[in-house]
Amino acid sequence: MPSHHHFSTRYLSAPDVIDMVQRKGVEACLRGVADYLHADFLRWGAFDKSARVASHSRDGVIELMPIADDRTYAFKYVNGHPKNTRWGLSTVMAFGVLADVATGAPLLLSELTLTTALRTAAMSAVAARAMARPGSRTMALIGNGAQSEFQALAFHHLLGIDTLRLFDTDPAATAKLQANLQGTGLRTVVCTSTAEAARGADIVTTVTADKTNATILTPDMLAPGMHINAVGGDCPGKTELHADVLRQAQVFVEYAPQTRIEGDIQQLPADFAVTELWEVLAGQHTGRASDAAVTVFDSVGFALEDFSALRFLRDTATELGIGQPIELIPELSDPKNLFGLLRTRNPLLRAAA
Amino acid sequence: MPSHHHFSTRYLSAPDVIDMVQRKGVEACLRGVADYLHADFLRWGAFDKSARVASHSRDGVIELMPIADDRTYAFKYVNGHPKNTRWGLSTVMAFGVLADVATGAPLLLSELTLTTALRTAAMSAVAARAMARPGSRTMALIGNGAQSEFQALAFHHLLGIDTLRLFDTDPAATAKLQANLQGTGLRTVVCTSTAEAARGADIVTTVTADKTNATILTPDMLAPGMHINAVGGDCPGKTELHADVLRQAQVFVEYAPQTRIEGDIQQLPADFAVTELWEVLAGQHTGRASDAAVTVFDSVGFALEDFSALRFLRDTATELGIGQPIELIPELSDPKNLFGLLRTRNPLLRAAA
Repeated sequence: MPSHHHFSTRYLSAPDVIDMVQRKGVEACLRGVADYLHADFLRWGAFDKSARVASHSRDGVIELMPIADDRTYAFKYVNGHPKNTRWGLSTVMAFGVLADVATGAPLLLSELTLTTALRTAAMSAVAARAMARPGSRTMALIGNGAQSEFQALAFHHLLGIDTLRLFDTDPAATAKLQANLQGTGLRTVVCTSTAEAARGADIVTTVTADKTNATILTPDMLAPGMHINAVGGDCPGKTELHADVLRQAQVFVEYAPQTRIEGDIQQLPADFAVTELWEVLAGQHTGRASDAAVTVFDSVGFALEDFSALRFLRDTATELGIGQPIELIPELSDPKNLFGLLRTRNPLLRAAA
Repeated sequence: MPSHHHFSTRYLSAPDVIDMVQRKGVEACLRGVADYLHADFLRWGAFDKSARVASHSRDGVIELMPIADDRTYAFKYVNGHPKNTRWGLSTVMAFGVLADVATGAPLLLSELTLTTALRTAAMSAVAARAMARPGSRTMALIGNGAQSEFQALAFHHLLGIDTLRLFDTDPAATAKLQANLQGTGLRTVVCTSTAEAARGADIVTTVTADKTNATILTPDMLAPGMHINAVGGDCPGKTELHADVLRQAQVFVEYAPQTRIEGDIQQLPADFAVTELWEVLAGQHTGRASDAAVTVFDSVGFALEDFSALRFLRDTATELGIGQPIELIPELSDPKNLFGLLRTRNPLLRAAA
């Protein structure tokens, strides 16, 4: 916490976070973010929570996701524009801020495009640890786009998944995923349909990007004991699961008020029974009811996950000495004299001197 | 708008914006922001508007203020912590972003601490031009803190105010304001109470900072034809005007749904009649009803004002060549291959090479 006027914001650029992940390793980062997530979900009641604020347009959505406990405030800016890859841009781009609740000072500004993929995968793995059958080894991975490697590695390192059954409507995406997973120890099986990929899978992860009400997964593909990690259905009009898949399963969510708007359960009545993940992690609710039950984690991405990820970035940046101070907020010799900034010698010249 | 993957965000630090204002001059900046504000308020119907998202804590508030038209999205992060000056920090600190609605790409990240003071003052002047009696020359300025110089200069340059009647509970604040206004051509009269300052004033500006339901201005201080520019009452539990001042006046607001929560009119029933400023600027509603009427601009600060200010900063930064590109969003050779970032040579080393 800043105690005087020599206060600056630490900035972590995208290259900084790439540097961080390369130096620590993807596995350590996934484990680290998962630990921070788990710890923060156990403090669920300590957070001032709200559904994100979305601005929808023809081709996509821009969202702000704020959350705070009594010491730290965080928010993320994130977009979702499925057509972006046509212009060479990412579908999802993000950045975020950690701030001090006591003063409002922004302490950290960081890229979150890469980090969002890490935290989403870590969240999926934390949920699956509480819901998937112990001994799960095979995962179907439907949608082999930008987030798929992170999901694959999170389930490999945190759950012991050793075999992936892959399907994407674009074979080039699957080939890219296979190439990126070389040397990780994961065995990959390329399938020609979602149904084929789901066959024999202990876990089915859906991470597709189309902004439509799709039915990627239908009831005929379910098998007793399956865990479904549904990641891609995450905004109004964007779903992946047939409604009957949800009706036949135990459904777990991050934060029910938001998931009822954005998740696959948007297809179902507002009183459809769901369990919030934190209740399971805190031991207040059982997870999987039986070996034969089908469980669904209807993941949409909640602000608390970015809070946890930003905490991980801050602590790791401090540990490794990564990032730069920036003067996003002016440094005032007298905080009651904002106008005085304009009467001083140009601070850019001062800084250069 | 980015058309390919060589996309970066322009960053304007606090020193950059100080540099901009020093090079253009405060008057030109106030006039410029006022022009952008006026133009955007005339396009009121084109904006996707919402009340800001506030996170209240014991000592203050942190807010996110998003808004968009069909081409540009903007948001501001801003805090309000009245006790901050004790730690040498500003009461209000802010930054903001302009983004491309079509792709979600953040195009500009800028300081908004200094800029918020400029845009708030410009907004007050734009409103007063539509509400104050023509020929107004004397303004009472109640609260001589961080924003007071900006209010003084905006009314001097945009309305022709030549005399200020000053009052603050802290005489040091008034002395600072006087010192900062030396050489501007404004005549200042130091008063020992709000009532004394208001006496003979054509316009009364209240810009106090206490987070309480204060009654800075009471009905006995009103005179026929007065315009009241109420700036400091801007969040729940923070008001400046006695309720009867509002009842005796024509009240104008920025965006009624937000002002009813945050403005001085929070003291009054939800059906208390107010007029939105854009209606007056667009000629859809008369402003001042008569020379004898008392008018109040119950200003709380609306997201559209930051949208306008960010547009002004972007255009002026381009004109003057101010600011730096930053890699807040990773540059991807293949946007479908986010994981590929981690398999390349460290981009920091690449950048240094």
